[in-house]
Amino acid sequence: MKKIVLIVLDGLGDRRTLDRPTPLEAAKTPTLNFLAKNGSCGLHYPLSPGVPIGSGLAHTLLFGYSEDDYPGRGVLEAYGAGIDLQPTDLAFRVNFATSDENFRIIDRRAGRRGEFIPQMAEELQEALNNNPFGVRVILKAYENYRGVLVLRGSILHPIPDLDPQIEGEPLPFSKDEMTGRIVNWIVVQSYEFLKNHPLNKKREEMGLPPANILLLRGAGSIKQRIPFHEKHHMRGLAIADRNLYLGVASYFGMDTAKVSDEEKIPLLMERLEEYDFFFVHFKLTDVYGHDGKWEEKKRYIEYVDGLLSPLKELKDVVIVVTGDHSTPAILKNHSGDAVPLLIYGGNLDDVKRFGEHECVKGRIGIVRAADVLNLAMDAAGRMKEVGK
Amino acid sequence: MKKIVLIVLDGLGDRRTLDRPTPLEAAKTPTLNFLAKNGSCGLHYPLSPGVPIGSGLAHTLLFGYSEDDYPGRGVLEAYGAGIDLQPTDLAFRVNFATSDENFRIIDRRAGRRGEFIPQMAEELQEALNNNPFGVRVILKAYENYRGVLVLRGSILHPIPDLDPQIEGEPLPFSKDEMTGRIVNWIVVQSYEFLKNHPLNKKREEMGLPPANILLLRGAGSIKQRIPFHEKHHMRGLAIADRNLYLGVASYFGMDTAKVSDEEKIPLLMERLEEYDFFFVHFKLTDVYGHDGKWEEKKRYIEYVDGLLSPLKELKDVVIVVTGDHSTPAILKNHSGDAVPLLIYGGNLDDVKRFGEHECVKGRIGIVRAADVLNLAMDAAGRMKEVGK
Repeated sequence: MKKIVLIVLDGLGDRRTLDRPTPLEAAKTPTLNFLAKNGSCGLHYPLSPGVPIGSGLAHTLLFGYSEDDYPGRGVLEAYGAGIDLQPTDLAFRVNFATSDENFRIIDRRAGRRGEFIPQMAEELQEALNNNPFGVRVILKAYENYRGVLVLRGSILHPIPDLDPQIEGEPLPFSKDEMTGRIVNWIVVQSYEFLKNHPLNKKREEMGLPPANILLLRGAGSIKQRIPFHEKHHMRGLAIADRNLYLGVASYFGMDTAKVSDEEKIPLLMERLEEYDFFFVHFKLTDVYGHDGKWEEKKRYIEYVDGLLSPLKELKDVVIVVTGDHSTPAILKNHSGDAVPLLIYGGNLDDVKRFGEHECVKGRIGIVRAADVLNLAMDAAGRMKEVGK
Repeated sequence: MKKIVLIVLDGLGDRRTLDRPTPLEAAKTPTLNFLAKNGSCGLHYPLSPGVPIGSGLAHTLLFGYSEDDYPGRGVLEAYGAGIDLQPTDLAFRVNFATSDENFRIIDRRAGRRGEFIPQMAEELQEALNNNPFGVRVILKAYENYRGVLVLRGSILHPIPDLDPQIEGEPLPFSKDEMTGRIVNWIVVQSYEFLKNHPLNKKREEMGLPPANILLLRGAGSIKQRIPFHEKHHMRGLAIADRNLYLGVASYFGMDTAKVSDEEKIPLLMERLEEYDFFFVHFKLTDVYGHDGKWEEKKRYIEYVDGLLSPLKELKDVVIVVTGDHSTPAILKNHSGDAVPLLIYGGNLDDVKRFGEHECVKGRIGIVRAADVLNLAMDAAGRMKEVGK
């Protein structure tokens, strides 16, 4: 049985236009081409053809779980922030945002700048715990304007997103009763507490928009799930630098390591003997896609290709390289296009270069994200025969 | 967000033989090749690989609905004939056929000739409404020997087809109790009423077989369904010349326009601003397939290719061209082969020509009919991200 290394370049897939190929097709990728040439290729539709999905769900599928196992973004963010949720907890993904006094959201990301937000979050958590509902509130801020909010001890209901999504639109307060009253209260209190906070005054002096309200979305609770090592008989280590990806791995029971891009492959090499499965995540392909930066996306792919070079030396390892979904630069958003996929260390085919269109000719064909781990485990001699 | 134009050439897919390519592969199709070259290609299995399906179900899937949403052919024919069904109505597709006095069916289509059938249908409807069951009967004839029968106010049960399918076989009367008694009575009465009808005497004088019995099949009632514009957030217009296709579009809530082949694209151009989604149907590919006419099928594809030429000028439109299923000329019947598919206005790939085998090399891969609308909507920027 071989070890498995799953490399995910977030939002890797892209679209061709009349005047240029995809970033991956244009990039110089000697490492990826080596792996493609000595492995087999294909593509995967993350959920089903044409359906764009979020990264949390996409990784749930890439880890061999089903759509039903996806607990919502809030839960994954909580695990990423190191919060081990209890079954009745309700977890939200949080943006620190800028609101006017009529709860019209002026900037959903408070200028994307995190100055003083962690300190204010800590104080706000204390204030919110002084609530009339007997609910415990956990609030953590990280990654600039992002964060997570957990309600413990509440009567739980599915909660719609308290986020207008479009700036200038009024905040959609919950119309639900009990849990709704609590989350509405929290949002109003966050504004009352933060609007005149001295650290927000400091932000304004620096020319930054105040971070004066919480936008809550992706509400969810944990679900019954089989831990990764029980389900797949592999001990897994997730290596990433963003909370969401560490969170989804941690939620399903993998160990995690938060390190920068340059440190990821050296860390993998160092800990190779300790684990059977490594998930290594690179984020910026997705960020550049969202920003419409084709050239930067291409160059980041080339940079990651260089980082991956030491993997060529590994023996008895199956290496999977793919994206979790497509984020075409021309769309600045996720799309439902099929994502390139290579598996090295199992079968071989005629594909010599890693790219969207080359992968169409590969031996794997076009599968779904939920098939990828099975294909990797089959290449690694780790699958059990069904219906024996 | 772009508008979507879905062009369906009925029964487009075909099979190669040792001595000739498919009609689509052989046809000169500059318009379709332009769209393929500047778009992306693939194929779809209508339901699943190897399973041949009918046109009503195939269009249900192409419109983004599931197999469970298909209400049966009778219901679709009723909507095509402009009958708005009530929930307890039972609708049948009808053939006017030729029977002997022992209810052996001599010609299931009464010579495929419609002379005097509409007049006889009108009189027969009146006669059938004088029934002992208190059931209202609606009978409409159209398209030569075809028609629709609706029972209103009956106690409904799923009804087997009252059609032997094979000429010379006895009529399979219903063994069910109440509804069965009614439909059996209707079939017997239709024969009693029509066998000596003066218009049938006239048909016989003209050398035509008498249209002296109703064959009933495809029984069904309407189902709960989400209208097309609510489900997909697009206002849809269906442009076709046959009842079934107008019927399936109308059943799911699209507006309809019944015009000849030549008028279809001009009408679309004229009404472009009014709708978000256009379904344009061309029938004869299927008819020629059923008749085993390879050459005529090829020439009709070339004819339609010419009609589609103005579409090349459209901006900000996603154009989908496909078939609802395959009707290989060599089979004279539907097959479960994958059907060529092109989507223009979203992604691009290496395919430069629209044909069965070229499409195998396309970026879309081989999907299902139920995926086609998602792919088109994704190309048009109309999909919502799942698991956000």
